[in-house]
Amino acid sequence: MNSLTAGGRLAERILDALAEATTDAPGITRVAYGPGERFAHDLVRNEGEKLGAGARVDAAGNLYLTLSGSNPDLPAIVIGSHLDSVAHGGNFDGAAGVVAGLAVMAELVGEGIQLKRDLVVLATRAEEAVWFPLSYPGSQAALGLLEPQALEARRSDSGRTLAEHMREEGFDPDAVRRGVPGIDAGRIAAFVEAHIEQGPRLVAAEAPVGIVTGIAGGFRYVDAKCFGAYAHSGAEPRFARHDSVLGFADLIAGLEAEWDALEREGHEATITFGRVQSDPTQHGGSRVLGELGFTLDVRSAEAAILDRIENRLQEILAEVGTKRSVTFELGPRFTWEPATMSAALIGRLDHAATELQMRAPHVPSGAGHDAATFAGAGIPTAMLFVRNENGSHNPHEAMEIADLDQAIRLLLRFVTDFDNSRDQT
Amino acid sequence: MNSLTAGGRLAERILDALAEATTDAPGITRVAYGPGERFAHDLVRNEGEKLGAGARVDAAGNLYLTLSGSNPDLPAIVIGSHLDSVAHGGNFDGAAGVVAGLAVMAELVGEGIQLKRDLVVLATRAEEAVWFPLSYPGSQAALGLLEPQALEARRSDSGRTLAEHMREEGFDPDAVRRGVPGIDAGRIAAFVEAHIEQGPRLVAAEAPVGIVTGIAGGFRYVDAKCFGAYAHSGAEPRFARHDSVLGFADLIAGLEAEWDALEREGHEATITFGRVQSDPTQHGGSRVLGELGFTLDVRSAEAAILDRIENRLQEILAEVGTKRSVTFELGPRFTWEPATMSAALIGRLDHAATELQMRAPHVPSGAGHDAATFAGAGIPTAMLFVRNENGSHNPHEAMEIADLDQAIRLLLRFVTDFDNSRDQT
Repeated sequence: MNSLTAGGRLAERILDALAEATTDAPGITRVAYGPGERFAHDLVRNEGEKLGAGARVDAAGNLYLTLSGSNPDLPAIVIGSHLDSVAHGGNFDGAAGVVAGLAVMAELVGEGIQLKRDLVVLATRAEEAVWFPLSYPGSQAALGLLEPQALEARRSDSGRTLAEHMREEGFDPDAVRRGVPGIDAGRIAAFVEAHIEQGPRLVAAEAPVGIVTGIAGGFRYVDAKCFGAYAHSGAEPRFARHDSVLGFADLIAGLEAEWDALEREGHEATITFGRVQSDPTQHGGSRVLGELGFTLDVRSAEAAILDRIENRLQEILAEVGTKRSVTFELGPRFTWEPATMSAALIGRLDHAATELQMRAPHVPSGAGHDAATFAGAGIPTAMLFVRNENGSHNPHEAMEIADLDQAIRLLLRFVTDFDNSRDQT
Repeated sequence: MNSLTAGGRLAERILDALAEATTDAPGITRVAYGPGERFAHDLVRNEGEKLGAGARVDAAGNLYLTLSGSNPDLPAIVIGSHLDSVAHGGNFDGAAGVVAGLAVMAELVGEGIQLKRDLVVLATRAEEAVWFPLSYPGSQAALGLLEPQALEARRSDSGRTLAEHMREEGFDPDAVRRGVPGIDAGRIAAFVEAHIEQGPRLVAAEAPVGIVTGIAGGFRYVDAKCFGAYAHSGAEPRFARHDSVLGFADLIAGLEAEWDALEREGHEATITFGRVQSDPTQHGGSRVLGELGFTLDVRSAEAAILDRIENRLQEILAEVGTKRSVTFELGPRFTWEPATMSAALIGRLDHAATELQMRAPHVPSGAGHDAATFAGAGIPTAMLFVRNENGSHNPHEAMEIADLDQAIRLLLRFVTDFDNSRDQT
């Protein structure tokens, strides 16, 4: 049985402390700009400072722990992820990546290695879109890219704005609004995020770690509705019905037919209805439903495929509306762009895995991550996935620390090789 | 413009008083064994006594207002309906039928007519199944037919049992449990219920009143669920999903195909999903849903068709379960039998309409009514529907008093002809 690295043992200890402090049965809860996220940031800062890293917090509350390199003129290597979670989520989504960065620092310190470049462990804020209907506002603010109106977005549980929550936690939303960055994009040589895989590919491949090829983009309608007309189930004959449930079922069938066609043509996409809800003040056993609310989430790594699905969606809604005598209102549309990982960094990670005799297959990311913000800003970006069972955003996440330790070893080799392997492209 | 009969004016006044006292915006609320139903019973009793009717209340709280006939040996004519409503419902569902009975009494009294038979206006209790998951417990208790275990059914808002609510209102659930009837079935010559139509047929036919041919039976699953597996919408590839939404959509498609086949073969039925609900503690934009709850309501006047749909339902669930890697649990099944209206009474109502030069088309009842209890007990039973827009069980019921007045005129003719038109079959 392999024993953990010293970094791996540190990672285990920090993750255990996080789980204990933010337990919210079932699972854990670390609300963005709430007490659980605050605890996690304080703990990570404390652990980083113990390792000798300098700590700095930006206007949005993102935390930068810097282990100085020998040549301060060289752009830094940044390892980062987020510390918030969904409500009643698992302990590893986000936190594992930050802790992996600390573990790499611990290994460097323990082995007395000083890199040429600064190594920054970045703990972002507010990555989970369940809190604010925004794409990665923390990492966007870190790069000074957060749109001013995003500060007016309201947190789903409190109803208060992002700006209010930032201020309440002691940060400076006005500086965020002015676009003051926490870190200069031009001073980042590489951004690398380690994250648990939220799907089953690494489990199926029996590989502890995977190297991410790209992050899917997507669009989401978070408050879509099909409108028909309420009626009595016994009294309303079929010909007179405007049944929103049947309209919704036809929408599903139409989009699935398109999904089938896409797959036959070799494209990857996902189409998901994450909430389906009749009105509790109106529904009942004897109602024909006049309204059905739902969310629609569409993802693909190909921007053209996203456009194609959106176009087909609009056609389907018109067809179903006519056929079923219903109407659809999709409501606000929330989009995020696909992100391409750096081929050069993927090559470096492949090389490091080979050196370690570690099998690290290439895998896509269907979920969005902070890494997408850095890739979108033109910063060379890479991601590692760590094998994990039962998905994420639920209490049953099941990453093994031994697998995270493999990611730590790979990251350690990646950073130590960074300025000593010029042959890599 | 036709003016109302004196009975019609009384009906209008009582209905206005009911609406005013039980307003619960939007609409009205008269909870079964609650204050709104109590108010309505008290008001109707008071109005009946003013007309000279004798009042009596049975062990379950059903109210009998009796205008004595000249021959006490003859079985009575009973005109009845219920006085409860759904929450935020309309003012006419149930109440219009009771008030029509009072109006007939008022016409008889005003014109100095004494019938040979007793005329009983019956105001039942607890007809709306939204309160207790039972079929017409009030009218069942009136005939001494309520199953003892029904008294343990719990009211949806209070969580307390039917027996507790009866006792709280001053009635005698122990007598109900022993099967003590409020009225002897053998002493009822005819039970007639007037009720607003809850569908659009009379509006489409431009007829104020319709004569009901039969009451559909049905079955309902009030707490059905499709179970899949929760997952992250971006991370879970299509092949690995167990999407309960897609399973539900396939169930709908399968049942609709059966519905199409039934209609092609000339059968009438309705299939309705009155509630569709993901778990608010689990759902969200980025979830693949692991559970979707729904209700399924199936109705037909043909018992064999109900059996056929149930059998096909079970086949579909097995097929969909295999195809989608989901499972279904239908939960408790609630059934009610189809009820046949008396051909002899339909003939009498047709004759009365002809005499009045009133067009009263024959219409089916998809919804259940107290009349089904009487028909099921072998009592000659008939129903009149009154034209009504916007369905029922909602605040927008729109019966015109002028249309109810037509039903009052038809009922009046029906009762005065009853022992003077022996040629009717």
